[in-house]
Amino acid sequence: MSSHLESSAPPVTRELARFAVTIPGEAIPAATRREATRSFVNWMGCAIGGAQHEAVDIALMTLAPFGGPAEHSIPGREERADPFGAALAMGISSHVFDFDDTHLRTIIHPAGPVASCLLPLAERQGASGRALLEALIVGVEVECRIGNAVYPAHYDVGWHITGTAGVFGAAAAASRLLGLNEEQATYALGIAATQSSGFREMFGSMCKSFHVGSAAKNGLLAALLAQRGFTSSTRAIEAPRGFANVMSTARNYDEIMQGLGSTWEIDANTYKPFACGIVIHPAIDGCAQLSRETGIAPDEIASIRLEVHPLVLELTGKTEPRTGLESKFSVFHAAAAGYMRHRAGEHEFSDEIVRDPSVVALRRKISAVVRPGTREDEMRLTLTTTDGRVIEKHVEHAIGSLARPLSNDDLSAKFMDLAEPVMGEGPGRSALDAAWAVEGGDVRSLLSASRPGAARTPAA
Amino acid sequence: MSSHLESSAPPVTRELARFAVTIPGEAIPAATRREATRSFVNWMGCAIGGAQHEAVDIALMTLAPFGGPAEHSIPGREERADPFGAALAMGISSHVFDFDDTHLRTIIHPAGPVASCLLPLAERQGASGRALLEALIVGVEVECRIGNAVYPAHYDVGWHITGTAGVFGAAAAASRLLGLNEEQATYALGIAATQSSGFREMFGSMCKSFHVGSAAKNGLLAALLAQRGFTSSTRAIEAPRGFANVMSTARNYDEIMQGLGSTWEIDANTYKPFACGIVIHPAIDGCAQLSRETGIAPDEIASIRLEVHPLVLELTGKTEPRTGLESKFSVFHAAAAGYMRHRAGEHEFSDEIVRDPSVVALRRKISAVVRPGTREDEMRLTLTTTDGRVIEKHVEHAIGSLARPLSNDDLSAKFMDLAEPVMGEGPGRSALDAAWAVEGGDVRSLLSASRPGAARTPAA
Repeated sequence: MSSHLESSAPPVTRELARFAVTIPGEAIPAATRREATRSFVNWMGCAIGGAQHEAVDIALMTLAPFGGPAEHSIPGREERADPFGAALAMGISSHVFDFDDTHLRTIIHPAGPVASCLLPLAERQGASGRALLEALIVGVEVECRIGNAVYPAHYDVGWHITGTAGVFGAAAAASRLLGLNEEQATYALGIAATQSSGFREMFGSMCKSFHVGSAAKNGLLAALLAQRGFTSSTRAIEAPRGFANVMSTARNYDEIMQGLGSTWEIDANTYKPFACGIVIHPAIDGCAQLSRETGIAPDEIASIRLEVHPLVLELTGKTEPRTGLESKFSVFHAAAAGYMRHRAGEHEFSDEIVRDPSVVALRRKISAVVRPGTREDEMRLTLTTTDGRVIEKHVEHAIGSLARPLSNDDLSAKFMDLAEPVMGEGPGRSALDAAWAVEGGDVRSLLSASRPGAARTPAA
Repeated sequence: MSSHLESSAPPVTRELARFAVTIPGEAIPAATRREATRSFVNWMGCAIGGAQHEAVDIALMTLAPFGGPAEHSIPGREERADPFGAALAMGISSHVFDFDDTHLRTIIHPAGPVASCLLPLAERQGASGRALLEALIVGVEVECRIGNAVYPAHYDVGWHITGTAGVFGAAAAASRLLGLNEEQATYALGIAATQSSGFREMFGSMCKSFHVGSAAKNGLLAALLAQRGFTSSTRAIEAPRGFANVMSTARNYDEIMQGLGSTWEIDANTYKPFACGIVIHPAIDGCAQLSRETGIAPDEIASIRLEVHPLVLELTGKTEPRTGLESKFSVFHAAAAGYMRHRAGEHEFSDEIVRDPSVVALRRKISAVVRPGTREDEMRLTLTTTDGRVIEKHVEHAIGSLARPLSNDDLSAKFMDLAEPVMGEGPGRSALDAAWAVEGGDVRSLLSASRPGAARTPAA
């Protein structure tokens, strides 16, 4: 890594800024818009579903005495907040169940930081759903390209990439919606870069979802400051002491430059069928399939052996989770729940299920070993019964992966599962309809439909 | 670096949290309190002096439409802001002239993040000056001990340590003032850790001082969230994926643990006589001395050769600065200004002086080479005249270093130089008196005295 080479790095910060504020909406293909709508529907369901979580309560309670005019909606909540508070709350709520979207190549959850930053701004401006959707696509593009350039080295260092890359996506999207010029947007990315933060160490605590809210809030601040003339480095990503060098041990700027404006990362977005980290989805899917196909009762099982991708044990190796939150970091609990309940929604990661003696009993029969060469959406399982039968299963691609995506109907069902406990069925259905119609609608109506209070004044 | 060793790292996060919220004020020696008062006076002068800077204007303008009740004072400004806005503004203003204090061992500017976080909180609570001063001492302790543990490796990676360590100091100090318990304070340090950010790449742009404001604002948020029960890692500093491993290539936890509560880092604080980075102070001091001692006119000079510490060229190697802000990163400009004007206040780093043809002419005669083994407060200079005379000078310890500290009178003079252009002489003098009397006073009166508007209602 010579400093000569570093200082001749391509001007990716400026290129991303120019892209973000100048690419015409018409350049975005219809299929990409459709995927963006699916991303938005999935995100909105998660945001509503998590809106009553204690982490969101605390964030809003903490900020309320100090907040500005509470003009901004928070999907799934009755109260409003100032734009920074709303962005923080939405970022937290949409990620707190670990149920949001995943850009599989980088494990970024792309919509969270970007949508949470955009909605208050779009609501303030009275923006169209189309403008919102285009800014979402552009923000996700910036965030995921930066992720592609530094993943996996950056993640391996210990950074929670959804926070660290997310703040760029938020700033880029907000720059577009604010109509910043190229120089302002370049500064916005710089102000975003120098706020980039969030450790993987925080997984299992409220800070994990805080990272998403923080990226949204800080990206918004970056764009607003840049709009007024606040200055920054113009090479915040690629400079010898910029993001890609300071926060990663390797980087490839081609990932940022090649195909910018002609290929779209949101096309590769995926949506989780299960309310936990993507790395244990093959285990849940495989166990659910084994259970359905064999009908073997849990007490007939001697052992289930999982052969897994290395990240599975690194991220979710908790053998004895004690709480719902901890259980999301236990492949053993998730597999047991998948086997016994054939699903893994938020309820399967509740304290109640985690402490259910029958689930605990099965969990303790499950072991996992790393099998080199396993893809992240792949898993091999070996079930041995107490009477000595051995059944093997190979999950080639877990449900929810790019090869086996959720259908629109699956996404609607997931949305309703999340929204109904918060809003009730009718208002939940209205919010769902508004989310699917985002591209043709306007943001204020969309946000109105996402408030539980809407139940009290039913629309005509 | 084995993960076994890492996971057996001492629980420094919890120890620092306990220290911050439980050390009795009486345990702080009188000499340490006196140094803290000197630190506070120096900081307040800088905060008032920088309060009208464009970077502060932009930050306040940007936040104003979204801010909460504007109840909090900002030294040197007439308007008020919510506590986050006030913390951000003060952090920026107190650092924007690069004139604030320096913990020489780590190049942390310790008071900025901590005082900027504390003042809005203390004002809100109606706290005593004594409580403020003790929290300042404690915050500086936490921040500088974390700095000691990772410096210089952390700085070498490219982090602006005043921002990255400052957020811990701010959170620790706010935790103390809020009366958090040990667990809450541990979480506060964790929430702070996961917001730790700021690149040295930003030096020369408004983002450099933004880092200080951001550390103050984010540290405040961390403590307020923790107070309400927001959770985090309890090992945010020392965990295998915590701050000290992710953001540094080396670390020594003894620096955090040894003598905690019995030795005081603020005792080693220093105050700049010149409005620029500490590394070029020996050059300014040396040139001013040469000029005074020899009386050689600039046009009789053929060359001045500086033998410098390596950081001097790394941080301040700009040969052709075009603006006041850039000139702070040019040892050549600073040395020329020091020679010609025998001082280097904010005016010497203005666009006007940077573009003055006589200063430019002398600047271009000045060269610098790294001399291995040179201390940071040391420099050797060789002046050669056009008629062939050679004069050498050895600055053993620059003015403002620990070995040659500014006196209280020097600090008062510096304060007035900074405050007078902003507030006028009388109100500036009142603010100075209030700052010196901080320990026996109360924070609301202190902050009243720091407002320019105070000029309109003179005290009896």
